[in-house]
Amino acid sequence: MYEMHFAVPMAGAVLNPINTRLDATSIAAILCHAKPKILFINRNFEPLARETLRLVSCDDSLLNLRVIFIDDIDAPKKVSSGELDYEGLIQRGEPSPLLVPRMFRIQDEHDPISLNYTSGTTADPKGVVITHRGAYLSTLSMIIGWEMGACPVYLWTLPMFHCNGWTFTWAVAARGGTNVCMRHVTAPGIYKNISMYSVTHMCCAPTVFNILLRGNALEQSHRSGPVHVLTGGSPPPAALVKKVQRLGFQVMHAYGLTEATGPVLFCEWPDEWNRLPENQQMELKARQGLGILGLAEVDVRNNKTQESVPRDGKTIGEIFIRGSILMKGYLKNPKATFEAFKHGCLNTGDVGVIHPDGYIEIKDRSKDIIISGGENISSVEVENVLYKHPKVLEVAVVAMPHPVWGETPCAFVVLQKGETDKEDCEDKFGYREKDLIEYCRENLPHFMCPRKVIFLEELPKNGNGKILKPKLRDITKGLVDDKDEVNLISRNFKSRL
Amino acid sequence: MYEMHFAVPMAGAVLNPINTRLDATSIAAILCHAKPKILFINRNFEPLARETLRLVSCDDSLLNLRVIFIDDIDAPKKVSSGELDYEGLIQRGEPSPLLVPRMFRIQDEHDPISLNYTSGTTADPKGVVITHRGAYLSTLSMIIGWEMGACPVYLWTLPMFHCNGWTFTWAVAARGGTNVCMRHVTAPGIYKNISMYSVTHMCCAPTVFNILLRGNALEQSHRSGPVHVLTGGSPPPAALVKKVQRLGFQVMHAYGLTEATGPVLFCEWPDEWNRLPENQQMELKARQGLGILGLAEVDVRNNKTQESVPRDGKTIGEIFIRGSILMKGYLKNPKATFEAFKHGCLNTGDVGVIHPDGYIEIKDRSKDIIISGGENISSVEVENVLYKHPKVLEVAVVAMPHPVWGETPCAFVVLQKGETDKEDCEDKFGYREKDLIEYCRENLPHFMCPRKVIFLEELPKNGNGKILKPKLRDITKGLVDDKDEVNLISRNFKSRL
Repeated sequence: MYEMHFAVPMAGAVLNPINTRLDATSIAAILCHAKPKILFINRNFEPLARETLRLVSCDDSLLNLRVIFIDDIDAPKKVSSGELDYEGLIQRGEPSPLLVPRMFRIQDEHDPISLNYTSGTTADPKGVVITHRGAYLSTLSMIIGWEMGACPVYLWTLPMFHCNGWTFTWAVAARGGTNVCMRHVTAPGIYKNISMYSVTHMCCAPTVFNILLRGNALEQSHRSGPVHVLTGGSPPPAALVKKVQRLGFQVMHAYGLTEATGPVLFCEWPDEWNRLPENQQMELKARQGLGILGLAEVDVRNNKTQESVPRDGKTIGEIFIRGSILMKGYLKNPKATFEAFKHGCLNTGDVGVIHPDGYIEIKDRSKDIIISGGENISSVEVENVLYKHPKVLEVAVVAMPHPVWGETPCAFVVLQKGETDKEDCEDKFGYREKDLIEYCRENLPHFMCPRKVIFLEELPKNGNGKILKPKLRDITKGLVDDKDEVNLISRNFKSRL
Repeated sequence: MYEMHFAVPMAGAVLNPINTRLDATSIAAILCHAKPKILFINRNFEPLARETLRLVSCDDSLLNLRVIFIDDIDAPKKVSSGELDYEGLIQRGEPSPLLVPRMFRIQDEHDPISLNYTSGTTADPKGVVITHRGAYLSTLSMIIGWEMGACPVYLWTLPMFHCNGWTFTWAVAARGGTNVCMRHVTAPGIYKNISMYSVTHMCCAPTVFNILLRGNALEQSHRSGPVHVLTGGSPPPAALVKKVQRLGFQVMHAYGLTEATGPVLFCEWPDEWNRLPENQQMELKARQGLGILGLAEVDVRNNKTQESVPRDGKTIGEIFIRGSILMKGYLKNPKATFEAFKHGCLNTGDVGVIHPDGYIEIKDRSKDIIISGGENISSVEVENVLYKHPKVLEVAVVAMPHPVWGETPCAFVVLQKGETDKEDCEDKFGYREKDLIEYCRENLPHFMCPRKVIFLEELPKNGNGKILKPKLRDITKGLVDDKDEVNLISRNFKSRL
């Protein structure tokens, strides 16, 4: 996948990195939509790939699809007769660089470099078309925003198929760095690689912090120096940041979206903030921050008037961005493209505030906002309070229908390891729910407190570790104010996902 | 000057920063060539400006030139009647940002942002036209190459009129930095500012290192942390780098030219080089290094065949660069523009080698190369050897005519303070010359050794501190192998400059 990020654009082609955690149906939908000419398959995903190829076999436009297998270096297999093998093809290639015929070379920097599907869905696929110009500007902006010096040692905990690894596929090369790849993101694996290769940088969703915290003391102590962690996807909960920072991970928070080729806001950290109390530091770190240098403009606007909101840290608006870094559009989807750029710049679909110092703080996805009796409730704010509770490992808050207020918050909670192993098994959900609601009432305005707390073994997530709130909303849709029903749902939840 | 770097482009105009160390004749030549509409004058340079305006008064095309005086904050003066005053004009301005009418806004990123004359000469003025795109890419590349983090405190020892301060006018703002300005670059001034404002970054020619070394011990100890120094203009002599690094200055070497909007090569420093012996580190630091990210290509080519030289660190070729960062061309000078871009990319006019690790090392300006009996002698290599001599403060080596070999090296030397105060006044030149030639023979191939050494109180330099080798060559042109003549010339040298 790393080599592809260079070889494919240099051949004048467009790269379409595919999320390997998707199922065959979703991947088949992507192939039918993207119409690739060559498909490279890692042997590790052979069953998934064969099932996908079976599903697309009826699509005439993919009849000439060439399939090339990449052998697993850890467990090499023989090539089946008639199959193309990646290393074999490379052997047959021309060793001199840049002998690409002129007609295949990129003539315009606005030409596409990659096609990245956002959270693969079968209906209405959205293939984000990323340009050479955008990828270049994003790469330079990542290096600057994260202050990535020469020769970084980068650990790939963030998958490269996810928005081209936030363009760090290219950024690591641009800084003469070393790529450390791992097949499975586990605590022992991460700590082993950090210690063996003196890792300096890694990117991940905040959920990976929980993996880091699961490492045992011996693993956690085997570090050679601080590891810079760029996190995004959702705001890192203060309590988690505090804990991983104590383990020597220096967390920087960024915010981005595939439509903008990667992160577009960095919570840049002025030196003087290090002198603030730790709790205040953590609150500042949860802010999404300032626009990267590659961006022309970032603005928070009133949804109705399209005017910029005041820089007061209170007035909520939608976040808009503008600049050469943005996607060209969604492939073969002019309607979605028009919607995204309707107001002359990209509507991120996120709502937030802008602080007097210019730092932007996202309060929610516009579709995740809970509207209770006409009041906007940021699900993220409620989650942040719950994350501070010592017994909470993970939490997601979504809207639940309410006969009077329209909507009201419902919290899905995963408890810390050991917390659910108590003997009072039958009672624990009821007890804990009361406990957590009481805790919220002490720390939040009443209207913002969840009226239900549902305990799960784990939260539903997509291939990138992002919590799937739509799945949780499906649960709350049918919810009534009945304890038994809730318990029943939570027990049966896993099988229904 | 700093405000102009933002105000002028934002008004859709082109900035022409003028070297205040030029004389009125040279500045008048620039004005007659550039045809500015508005001239901003700092009160400190009022006599120079009035003399310049007198010289251009006969140029009809400058009849409508508006002159605006910027008062000196240290010694404010009353505005003379009829004169426009900078602060007064700003008071009358519109406080809201970005109300520039659409017709004045930049429509194309290839439009010029600034016009920078290279070492102001009266004949054949070369006004380098720098584009918005080039300035943007250069700025981002400077931040990355120098690894300039958030909130730098930047001391202006490099003048802003010199290639827009190597684009750090914009880079400091882009990183949310602080600008510390000083009117005169003196050792006490530099150390006072470093200590008072906790300076983190500064740029300067290597000649400024001599100023830093002139500070007394008390001044030199008053630092709050390491100061990152980006140096260029000429390769920093190893002995000087060693000394200033011991004082807490962390030297990075860059190479650039106005035609490329600023530095284009950075001697990037991998961690492992810190484990090498100090002398080897200094040799590596004198290399110009790797192309910046904003550059498409940098190459060393055989002058005749235009083919890339091998990466052997030995084969000399001319250095060519290509990319969006380059100037648009020389203003109203199609001949010089054609010459510069003759081979499809910019000929830097410098000759050098490329090492196996890809680092470029410049051996000389092509016009400074000394050709002796068919052998190329790099004046820089001879200078580097002389700089290692404990009694040498500054040195410049140029070609001297030779009846047999065509050319032979001649060294102009400034001795360390105190070295010329000896009592053997009449003999010292003769003695020292023999002494230094002997020293060169021990450290260089014979054909590379200077056959003459001329001692000066100081070397002739231009407004940017660059040694004026053409002036030294004027001296050597009339030189014959006669000690008395040489001494006579050296004594009368200062008055002739």
